[in-house]
Amino acid sequence: MVFERKTKGFINIDPIQTGGRLTEDAKMALLEWGDGYSICDFCQGRLEEIRNPPIHDFIHEELPKFLGCDVARITHGARESKFIVMHSLAKRDAWVVLDGNAHYTSYLAAERAGLNIAEVPNTGYPDFKIEADRYAEVLEETKKRGEVVLAVVTYPDGNYGNLPDVKRIAKICSDYDVPLLVNAAYAVGRMPIKLSGIKADFIVGSGHKSMASTGPIGVLGMKEEWADVVLKRSQKYKNKEVELLGCSVRGVAIMTLMASFPHVKERVKKWDEEVKKARYFASNMEELEIKQLGDKPHNHDLMFFHAENLYDISKRAKKGRYFLYYELKKRRIHGIKPGLTRYFKLSTYGLNWGELDYVINAFREIIEKYKSD
Amino acid sequence: MVFERKTKGFINIDPIQTGGRLTEDAKMALLEWGDGYSICDFCQGRLEEIRNPPIHDFIHEELPKFLGCDVARITHGARESKFIVMHSLAKRDAWVVLDGNAHYTSYLAAERAGLNIAEVPNTGYPDFKIEADRYAEVLEETKKRGEVVLAVVTYPDGNYGNLPDVKRIAKICSDYDVPLLVNAAYAVGRMPIKLSGIKADFIVGSGHKSMASTGPIGVLGMKEEWADVVLKRSQKYKNKEVELLGCSVRGVAIMTLMASFPHVKERVKKWDEEVKKARYFASNMEELEIKQLGDKPHNHDLMFFHAENLYDISKRAKKGRYFLYYELKKRRIHGIKPGLTRYFKLSTYGLNWGELDYVINAFREIIEKYKSD
Repeated sequence: MVFERKTKGFINIDPIQTGGRLTEDAKMALLEWGDGYSICDFCQGRLEEIRNPPIHDFIHEELPKFLGCDVARITHGARESKFIVMHSLAKRDAWVVLDGNAHYTSYLAAERAGLNIAEVPNTGYPDFKIEADRYAEVLEETKKRGEVVLAVVTYPDGNYGNLPDVKRIAKICSDYDVPLLVNAAYAVGRMPIKLSGIKADFIVGSGHKSMASTGPIGVLGMKEEWADVVLKRSQKYKNKEVELLGCSVRGVAIMTLMASFPHVKERVKKWDEEVKKARYFASNMEELEIKQLGDKPHNHDLMFFHAENLYDISKRAKKGRYFLYYELKKRRIHGIKPGLTRYFKLSTYGLNWGELDYVINAFREIIEKYKSD
Repeated sequence: MVFERKTKGFINIDPIQTGGRLTEDAKMALLEWGDGYSICDFCQGRLEEIRNPPIHDFIHEELPKFLGCDVARITHGARESKFIVMHSLAKRDAWVVLDGNAHYTSYLAAERAGLNIAEVPNTGYPDFKIEADRYAEVLEETKKRGEVVLAVVTYPDGNYGNLPDVKRIAKICSDYDVPLLVNAAYAVGRMPIKLSGIKADFIVGSGHKSMASTGPIGVLGMKEEWADVVLKRSQKYKNKEVELLGCSVRGVAIMTLMASFPHVKERVKKWDEEVKKARYFASNMEELEIKQLGDKPHNHDLMFFHAENLYDISKRAKKGRYFLYYELKKRRIHGIKPGLTRYFKLSTYGLNWGELDYVINAFREIIEKYKSD
């Protein structure tokens, strides 16, 4: 039984969708490697040692180079990468420091690892910035309450697409002798980013979110010094890594990640163009009196908008708060959650200029239409 | 860049491959749902609540019915299912009891969850049986050393394909008030099995191993009484389950599992035929003086063989211990690990009678060929 994807052929501006669209090579990889454990035909006992297909070279050479780290692993996703790090560093009654814009899965990973959570607050409406220096304050205070085993910064966050001063945050964490994990689920595969440039300890990315891969798959990069702890071997099975339960992604997702990888390496070089498009889109939305929140001018394709005008329309539209969803659907645009009108996020990643104008015009038309009601 | 699967078109008798071959529907699902987070187009916040595609109905209705359990979830695989259960039940200094035929990932999951491990030994060569009554002994002894939070039985195990008396083991564990997890990675999707029939507490299956799905994906079924502990909600995000980090398989694997599911439900009804084929294969191998170890007559397609004659050949063959691998490769048969000759496992699952004869003849030819050397 095959279910149909209803949004096929739509312009999809959902931030979780724009960076995960497959390349043509990845689509071919799907069919070649679709069968269950296909990648394990020539396995000698460890996923990252498989040489046919060349997973070994990808994990040990290409991926660390791309992430600017010493050691890399494939995981089931960014959240699983975070949990692996937190769980392996966790101690009884210890703390993790998260930024106030952290993805909900950073909280969940900390909860699951049994860590207490302290938060570096954002600056609130309208910028929602994470200020680097607040890390020092929160680390200072939290250290009085117990051991801080990890700090996390979300770069960019998944609501506002804000890019905090991650290098400065890394410096501060280093001064406090607390390792820093950069959750770059919306950065790795979209924009240039390297752990070595940031001088943090861990970097986390998402294949299905930002690396043109099918899900679930993520990446985890780290400095050499953490490998012994995070990638600890089993006492009984000496070649198996405990936190990875031996192997992580056993299946086709790794093949789509590898198939798309040459394209992904190229596309991050065109990041400037993506930022230009995002700013163009935001300024056009502002002309429609839809306010872009977060960093301004914006530095990422993921943007959050505040639309009092659309909210006003929703109060009198026939379909109520669902009017925007249906109006966009009519125009074959998908990605703003049904029911949202006042506050919503979207992403312009990978859209061409014509598509951008099409989406902008759709918003213009919708506002015009209900104005004349 | 698309890498080629070298074993394409081969008869694959690797036990981890035979139950994971995609159905035609699953192949179509791959292309329809390949894009990263495609299944999340209409997500309202939880994977198992997505109604379009109908993941909700699958997880809440079809899957529990199929597994004979009250509550089911999708995970990244059997090992991740086991870890979820162990991690949520774990207490300081507590124990888990595993059967001596447990998959290595059962040990790893226990290690990762910080549990001590006690083992119910098998009977050794040639049967390697797990005797139900030994669970009572080991539980008795282990309870003196600390709290036993879980027992695990592997049904069947991944080496010998033995099927222990799981109902009796469940009764014993219940008498000792220890929950039992049935690792049915080689059962669910191949043969009829229901948690309700066994009267155990948890059942674990593997989509890529035995449910004609792409990887990574697994299933976890449980009795209602465990849902509160194992599927505990986040303190901050009330609708998110901590052990699943909110959602588990975010991507195409769930769609291939669902696409193949109607076929899988049908194929388990034909299990008798699979057992017949396995026994036919085993008896023919025995005629070639290749001994089948484990349960006899055998009750599963996964079989372990002991071949002194092939081992003898390997000592004088030009390619040494790799001779068998290359001889089979020449005949387009794949699945016995390169270098193995004396002891090896294979699976006859899904092979037709003609293919079975082809493989048997291949072994016969190889033995003949080197006999005349």
